[in-house]
Amino acid sequence: MAELSPGFTLIDGQPQTQLSVRDRGLAYGDGLFETLRVANGFIPLLEQHLARLHRGAARLGIEYDAAQLAEELARLAVQLGSGILKLILTRGDGQRGYALPQPQQPRRIVQVAALPAYPASHAEQGIRLYPCATRLGQQPLLAGLKHLNRLEQVLARAEWNDPAFAEGLVCNQQGEPVECTVSNLFLRLEGEWVTPALDQCGVQGVMRDYLCMQLAAAGQSVSVRPVTQAELLASREVFCCNSVFGVWPVIGLGNHQWSIGPYTRQAQALAQQVML
Amino acid sequence: MAELSPGFTLIDGQPQTQLSVRDRGLAYGDGLFETLRVANGFIPLLEQHLARLHRGAARLGIEYDAAQLAEELARLAVQLGSGILKLILTRGDGQRGYALPQPQQPRRIVQVAALPAYPASHAEQGIRLYPCATRLGQQPLLAGLKHLNRLEQVLARAEWNDPAFAEGLVCNQQGEPVECTVSNLFLRLEGEWVTPALDQCGVQGVMRDYLCMQLAAAGQSVSVRPVTQAELLASREVFCCNSVFGVWPVIGLGNHQWSIGPYTRQAQALAQQVML
Repeated sequence: MAELSPGFTLIDGQPQTQLSVRDRGLAYGDGLFETLRVANGFIPLLEQHLARLHRGAARLGIEYDAAQLAEELARLAVQLGSGILKLILTRGDGQRGYALPQPQQPRRIVQVAALPAYPASHAEQGIRLYPCATRLGQQPLLAGLKHLNRLEQVLARAEWNDPAFAEGLVCNQQGEPVECTVSNLFLRLEGEWVTPALDQCGVQGVMRDYLCMQLAAAGQSVSVRPVTQAELLASREVFCCNSVFGVWPVIGLGNHQWSIGPYTRQAQALAQQVML
Repeated sequence: MAELSPGFTLIDGQPQTQLSVRDRGLAYGDGLFETLRVANGFIPLLEQHLARLHRGAARLGIEYDAAQLAEELARLAVQLGSGILKLILTRGDGQRGYALPQPQQPRRIVQVAALPAYPASHAEQGIRLYPCATRLGQQPLLAGLKHLNRLEQVLARAEWNDPAFAEGLVCNQQGEPVECTVSNLFLRLEGEWVTPALDQCGVQGVMRDYLCMQLAAAGQSVSVRPVTQAELLASREVFCCNSVFGVWPVIGLGNHQWSIGPYTRQAQALAQQVML
C-alpha cells in the first residue's frame, strides 16, 4: 500500500489540490471540519468525530453521504499509518447569494498532514497559556460545532508568537474562560473536575467529551457549567486537551502558576489509552 | 473590448476558476469580500467599498496591494459595462493551524456575475420582510466588517423560500432589529431617521453610510443607535438598502404593515443618484 505524503488531498474521492472558486466553504465558511489523528492505521475517537460532524451538518442543513465518508477516512487511515487527516465538508458550489443551492452537492475534502512535532515536555512538564484578549462571540446557534467560521480563533492565535506559550486561553464576552484556541479546558475545583459549558460559544472537542465520560467512569465527578476567571485561578490543577495531543497540564497563565497534580496525570493516562 | 461573461473569474489577475485547497478563506473564512455593482463601466461607491475592505484587512491583519486591487476593479468594470463584480480577498494559503502564515501571500478573487433580476415592484411598491428566528451573535471585534464568516446569514436566509418575502429581518441576541440578510435597515421615528448601531454585530453597508451622509446633507437628521422591536413597529416608514438594489421600501413584517412615505422616496432618489 503506497504511503500518503503530507499535502496529498482527496476532493470527493479524487486526488487533486484545487477546488472550485464557487465553493460556499470559501464564500461563507459554509461547512464543517474535523482534524483526525491517525495512529497505527486507526483513527482514535472516529465515532465521536463523525458524530460531531453529523450534529454540525444537521444544524447547518448539509446533506452528505455519511457512510461513504466514514469508509473513505478508514481506508485513508490504513494507507497513512500515522499522521493527521483533516476533513472539510462544505455545502459545495453555489451561485451568488446566501440562499441554499437546490439541490445541494456537498464537497468532502481530505488533506493529509504530518503529526505535529510538539515537544515532549508539553505533556511531561506542562505548558503556559497566553491570555488572549480576543473574546468569543455569543452565538448559541453555532456553539459547540466545528464549523468553518473561525476568524475568532485566527485573531486569538495571532496575538502571540512567543513559543513559551504553547496555547492561548480564550474567554467569552463576559470575560469567563471558555476554552483554548485549539483545545478544551478542565479545572480541578474542590474535589471535582469542571469544564466550561459550551452552549453559547466554543468548540465541543471530542477528547473533552471522551474524558468527561472516562473520568466519570473512573469515579471522578465532572461538572459542565460556566466558569469564572476567579475559579480558574483558584483551581488546584488545570489541563487542556484535544484529540491530537491528548492532555497537556497547564502550569502558568500570566503571573499565575499551577503545579501538576495526580488528577491531571490520571486524565493524561486516560487520554493516552485511546490515542495508541 | 471583449464583454465579460457571468462566471468569468480572475484569481490574482489570472483567468481561472479553481483555487488551492490550502486557501485560508476555505479553511477558516479568513478573508473579506465586497459585492460591487457595475453600471456604465463604473462602480458606484467604489471608494467606500475599498475603504471598508481596508478597515477589514487592517482588523484581520491581511496585508494586500490596495492600489493593484483598485486598478484591477476599475479595469474590469470598464470591460464589464454592466453587472456585478464580487471581490474576495483571503489571507492566501496556509499550513495546518490557525497561526498566521509568514510571509502572508493574500489572494484576490474577482468573479463576474449578472445584475440580479429583481422585480421592479420591489422598489416601486415595497417589499415584505420575513421575521428570521436566527439571531446575530455578539462579537464587537468583527462587527461591521464584510468578512467571510457568514454562517449566520446562511442560516437566516435558509429560513424562508416564499418569494413573497424579498428580504429577512435579523435581530441581535437581545431580539433587537439590526439589519436584513443582505441589506441595512432605516426607520422613520419622530421626525428623524434611525438606523441600528452595528458595533456588536451586523455588516456596515456602504449604501447605509452613503445615505447617512446624503440624508444629513439634505437636512434630515439621522441617528445611529440600538433600536427596539417596539420602535420598529412604531416607526412611520421603513426601508432597507444596499449598493446593488438601492432602496426598497418595507411595507410588511409578519402582520404588521407600513405605507410608503415621502421620506423613503427621498432616500430612494438619493440612492438612485449614485447608482446610475
